Order: sequence, then C-alpha cells, then structure tokens
Amino acid sequence: MTPPRGFPDAEHGARLAAIQVAMAGADLAALLLTTAPEIRYVTGFLTRFWESPTRPWFVVLPVEGDPVAVIPEIGEAPMRRAGVRDIRTWPSPQPADEGAGLLAHTLREVAGPAGRVGLPMGPETHLRMPLSDWDRLRAACPALSFVGDGGLMRRQRMVKSPAEIAKIETACAIAGRAFDRLPQIARAGVPLEAVFRGFQALCLEEGADWIPYLAGAAGQEGYADVISPATDTPLAPGDVLMLDTGLVHDGYFCDFDRNLAVGQPLPGAAAAHAQLLEAVEAGAAAVRPGARAADLFAAMAGIVGAEGSVGRLGHGLGLSLTEPPSLTVADETVLAPGMVLTLEPAVTLGTGRLMVHEENLVVTDAGCRFLSPRATGPIPVLEG
Amino acid sequence: MTPPRGFPDAEHGARLAAIQVAMAGADLAALLLTTAPEIRYVTGFLTRFWESPTRPWFVVLPVEGDPVAVIPEIGEAPMRRAGVRDIRTWPSPQPADEGAGLLAHTLREVAGPAGRVGLPMGPETHLRMPLSDWDRLRAACPALSFVGDGGLMRRQRMVKSPAEIAKIETACAIAGRAFDRLPQIARAGVPLEAVFRGFQALCLEEGADWIPYLAGAAGQEGYADVISPATDTPLAPGDVLMLDTGLVHDGYFCDFDRNLAVGQPLPGAAAAHAQLLEAVEAGAAAVRPGARAADLFAAMAGIVGAEGSVGRLGHGLGLSLTEPPSLTVADETVLAPGMVLTLEPAVTLGTGRLMVHEENLVVTDAGCRFLSPRATGPIPVLEG
Repeated sequence: MTPPRGFPDAEHGARLAAIQVAMAGADLAALLLTTAPEIRYVTGFLTRFWESPTRPWFVVLPVEGDPVAVIPEIGEAPMRRAGVRDIRTWPSPQPADEGAGLLAHTLREVAGPAGRVGLPMGPETHLRMPLSDWDRLRAACPALSFVGDGGLMRRQRMVKSPAEIAKIETACAIAGRAFDRLPQIARAGVPLEAVFRGFQALCLEEGADWIPYLAGAAGQEGYADVISPATDTPLAPGDVLMLDTGLVHDGYFCDFDRNLAVGQPLPGAAAAHAQLLEAVEAGAAAVRPGARAADLFAAMAGIVGAEGSVGRLGHGLGLSLTEPPSLTVADETVLAPGMVLTLEPAVTLGTGRLMVHEENLVVTDAGCRFLSPRATGPIPVLEG
Repeated sequence: MTPPRGFPDAEHGARLAAIQVAMAGADLAALLLTTAPEIRYVTGFLTRFWESPTRPWFVVLPVEGDPVAVIPEIGEAPMRRAGVRDIRTWPSPQPADEGAGLLAHTLREVAGPAGRVGLPMGPETHLRMPLSDWDRLRAACPALSFVGDGGLMRRQRMVKSPAEIAKIETACAIAGRAFDRLPQIARAGVPLEAVFRGFQALCLEEGADWIPYLAGAAGQEGYADVISPATDTPLAPGDVLMLDTGLVHDGYFCDFDRNLAVGQPLPGAAAAHAQLLEAVEAGAAAVRPGARAADLFAAMAGIVGAEGSVGRLGHGLGLSLTEPPSLTVADETVLAPGMVLTLEPAVTLGTGRLMVHEENLVVTDAGCRFLSPRATGPIPVLEG
C-alpha cells in the first residue's frame, strides 16, 4: 500500500514548468530559493542535514531552462542523484565568502545584467542565509532587482499532486497505527515524558522515517498549552492526554492529534471531545472547491467559538508541518482540489484549560476526503 | 546520574549579564533575537513548535534590564513559565501585521529614539522572519540603526556553563548506550532504512527526548556521502555501516558517529578506522586553552590529510547540532575552557568513498575531556 519513494520523472518537470509560467507572468528572470522545503519542492533533494545551520544552500530557477544549484561541496553527490545537472559548489565552511560570491555570479548569469530576481518574502517565509551575506549579495549585483515572488511559490505549493497526497496519506496512516497502540504505553502513573518517548518509538515501529514534531499535554479536563515539551508528571485518573504529531514519510508530514481520557472521562472532557468532533464535521462539510479558508473557520467557530483557538482552526501541510492557508476569519484563500488541510478546532474548558482536536484532509472535486483515520465516537479511554 | 532538567535560577541571569556587558562595549541599546537557539539561550524557552514556519518569535534584550518577549499569543503561557516577565503578544497568524508593528513599538521603547539595535548577522546565523517584514520593521523605525552584533552572541554561546556541559554529556551517554545496542537491530540483510528506524527507537529507549538528526550510510569499504537519507538497500557482508546522530536531551545536542563492519571487515575499512581513531587522538592531544581551531585541524589533517574531509574536521555543538567554531585551516578561534567541540576526521578510501569518525569533547583547563564514550580498538563487527 505504501507508495514508492521519490517521484515519477515528470513530477519535478511539471512543477518547474508551472513555476516558470508564473515567473514569466511576474516578469521574473530568476527565482532564488534558500530553505529546505522550497529547494526540495523544485529538486526533490531530501536530507536531514538542514539541521546544521552552518551552511547556506541556494537554488536558482531561471525563467526558462533547468534549475541551478549553488551549494556546499558536501551536497554535490546527493544533489546530482536528485537529478539536478547544473551544480556549482564552494568548499564550505568558508565564512569569508560562504557562497555569496558564487551565488552573485550565478544570478548575474541566469537573470541577465539587469534582471528581476524574485524571492519568497511574504508570510511564513524566511531567508536562510546570514543577513550580512544578503547585503553582500545585493552589493555584488547592483544592477539586479531583488523583489518578492508575489506569492507564486505559496500558490504553487498549496495544491498537491496525487503523488504528494499519497505520501501525506501514508504519513497519516503510520501515525494512525501508532495512536491505535497508545494504550500499550500510556496509562495512569506513566510520566508524560515516557509517553512522549514511547509514542515516538511506536511511530518508528509503524514506519515513520523520523519525527520532527511531537507536542502534547495532559491535565484534568484539559491542558494549559499545546506547544510545551513533556514534563515528568505521571498521568493521573481524570486527565485528558493529547498527543499531536508531525511525523514524516518520504519527506512529507502528517499533522494530527488524538485526545484520550485516563480512566473514566470527566464530564467536561467527554463533552468537549464530542463538541470538537462536531466542529470537525462542520468544517469538513464546508470544504469544497471555491470555498474560502475563512468559510471553514466560520463553520467550526460556529460550534466551538473562536476564543479557545490557538490563533487559527487549521492550516495547510505537506513539505512543512504547517503551510498556507490559515483557517482564520481573515484568510480569503479559495480552496482548490489537491489542497491538503488540517481542521484543528479548540475549546476552552475553564481557566487556562483547553482541548484541541485535529484531522487532515484533501480537497476533492466533490468536497473532501480525510487523510487521517478520522476519530469517531466518545473519547477513548486509557487504563486509569 | 542524569542532571535535573532546566537550569539553576542564576544561569539565565548570568548569561544576560555577560551579554549586556558585551552590548555596552559594542554601543548597542538593544539586541534582537529571532531563532530558536538564540531565544532559548537567553530565556530557557524550550518548544518543538519552531518546526512550524508560520509564526515569527522575537526577544529583545535591552542593554540594561530584563528581556522582552514579543511573541504570538500561543506562546504566552510557556514563555511565562520560562521566567520571562515582560511578554507582549499578538494574535497570530495575522499576515497583515505578523508582529512587526508590535516589535517596532518595542524596539523604539527599549532602544530609545535613535539607538543602535544589534542582530546576529554573521556566519551560521539567519533572520527568522519574512524579508518583507524585515523591510517593514526598519521602515517603521527610521531613526534606529540596525547593525550586526559583532559576533557577541557567537562568542557568548561558544563557552558552555557546567550545566550546559552536563546536558550535552547526558545526550552523549544516551547515544552511546544506543550505539552499544546496534547489534540487536543491525546485521547483514537488514535494509538501511530499517536500521535508521531501529536506531532511533533505541535512542528513545535509552532516554533521548527526540532525535532531530540522524544521518548514515553503508557501503563496501566506505560510503559515498554522509548526508543522505536511508535507502532500502540491505546491509551486506563487507559493508561499513556509519550512523551519526544528533539526539537531544533537555534541549542540548550530542553529535557523534560510529562505524561498524558487517561481517569480517575488509582490510581498507579496518585500516581507515584505525587511522580515524589515530586522528582523533592527535586532535585531542592538540586541545588546550589558547590553541586555535586551526591547530586541531592541522593535527588531524596530519594523519588523515584534508582531501576526504566534509569541509572541516569538526565543529562546536550545544543548543544546535553544529555551532562555531569550525575546525578548518582558516579558523583562528582561540579555544577556552568550556568550549564543546566535535572532532570529525574523514578519510577517502577510493573513488567516491569515504569514512568519517566523530567524537565530542569539552575543553578543560588541562586540555580536554571526552563527552562521548570514546571508540577504541578495532572496528566493531556486526553479524555478517
């Protein structure tokens, strides 16, 4: 059932062609990419080496022709295996000129003497190179214009191909099997940090390549926040345990959570869980091509209100744990088939306590299809 | 044996005081920090939520007084628990003003009407906020000067406190125990990707909080590169298997590797392994306060040459998998007690094949002390 790793030969060519059409429309002679998901999107180059902040990596897309990788020597062999033919390297680390000179030369060549070079500069982006090198780069290319990409990478990445959707669905299935096995490792008396460790091990056993993200919490009828690391506090009867994982299969994320009661669920937790599932139902019912991200927010907020939210009630995902759009009152992004979204309603239960539920789905021609093995029924119960 | 989580109350105050002395010396009214390790260094705020690129986070250090956190609402409770008192939040995501306005207001207040605001801008840094917001921020504070921090954060973070060293040593011990158990999961016939999964599970069983980094490779008398993800190729007799892990304990990394032979080691691999250990010995013998990073490079390159290296023969580590300095011919960083380093010699065995060995140590008054459970003797053997 697991789809083959990597992509059909045509996939990256199709992505490049679509980006180049958008580049031409935006009068961009070149596009400069610096982050892991951007570079992976256009080349397929997959490595965990991004964890090291020492070396910048660059890919330059011309408006016509093949991508040019401007990268540290250490990446040449794997970048070549990814299928990139034009690779220019420098011996890194070399702080006196950490690739900026080679990049400037490449941009002048690719963009022409006075071309416009686009970069992703808008929301949810950053430039992965030292700011001093960014200044140096622009000084070395005074005739080039560095401008925003007008959101073209954002728009392009938001709609996933069937092969991308299959990878996300595989990641979801792996996490779903790990969640099913949670009762093997989580019960009253087990410290939360042991639950975190054990759950990550279950994810690996079920096939995760690695687990870039795990958050969670436990508390009586809800938890205080959803982004803290685990403490050594043991699970106690009456607790709600929440685990939210972004594990990776072949470079693609899932991002969903499960809530479980430790022993007999307290009434507030049981009711909140039911309400969260109802909100997911309402959100899913609002998903169709042409609907706006804000419509999904409204559908879910109609059930759970907006006050308990962690700023939004869901978001895109794929190469990154979170991607555009955001399910907020203000996000007017129009949904299209192939967009992969999380629905993530939250409810407040009392002073400082909340519960959050999250599922993953893909927008289809007819509406949506869940990619995560959707939670149904009453809150599941762990040994109390 | 595991040190307590977190830090003594005095730790972050001492870090802040040292940074503020350096700020005063550099005539900085404020320091702006945007990345996970920088913000964790000054506040202790620990979360895996940085995996989501949606929201920027900011900490502003005044030249006198307490840190100011300018962060998304979702982080308020855990940032307060970390001990930060001055917290200013905005409801994020809110792309129309993703914190830049609040940050501009805070910087004008903290730095005064025309103060100098420093940022880490040099090698191995980046600015974790959208470039368009960076432009907007500067436009909103036209009287402030935004300048480099002159490397003060780099210098400050390079020398670790005893509590930091204890956390790194704990991470090393966890990885060491996992490496000791490798024969339980790795033998001829096991696909490399199963070895990667199984090893990560062993790291968790031995106490890792999470595993941000695992690289590795296998091949006959060496491997082609050291940054690629695992393939499904089974281990075969004559292979050398290398695993290199950056696991985390309480937010601090180890970063070391082990090479193992699958069955009877081929002569080239056995000789290369011995040479790598000899290079580590030579590198360690060169470590003492006052020596330069380049001296360690020279000591190891004297044994293994420089051609097989992955650009350097070691580096700093701590809050990040890799940190300054770099053990290269050009790095003149002067070693001081408390610096934590990797020694990472590499040798080439034939066309496109190499072997790399890595250990972790701390610079002491007398020389150095290994933090990783140092490999000794001939290359260990897995069932062939």
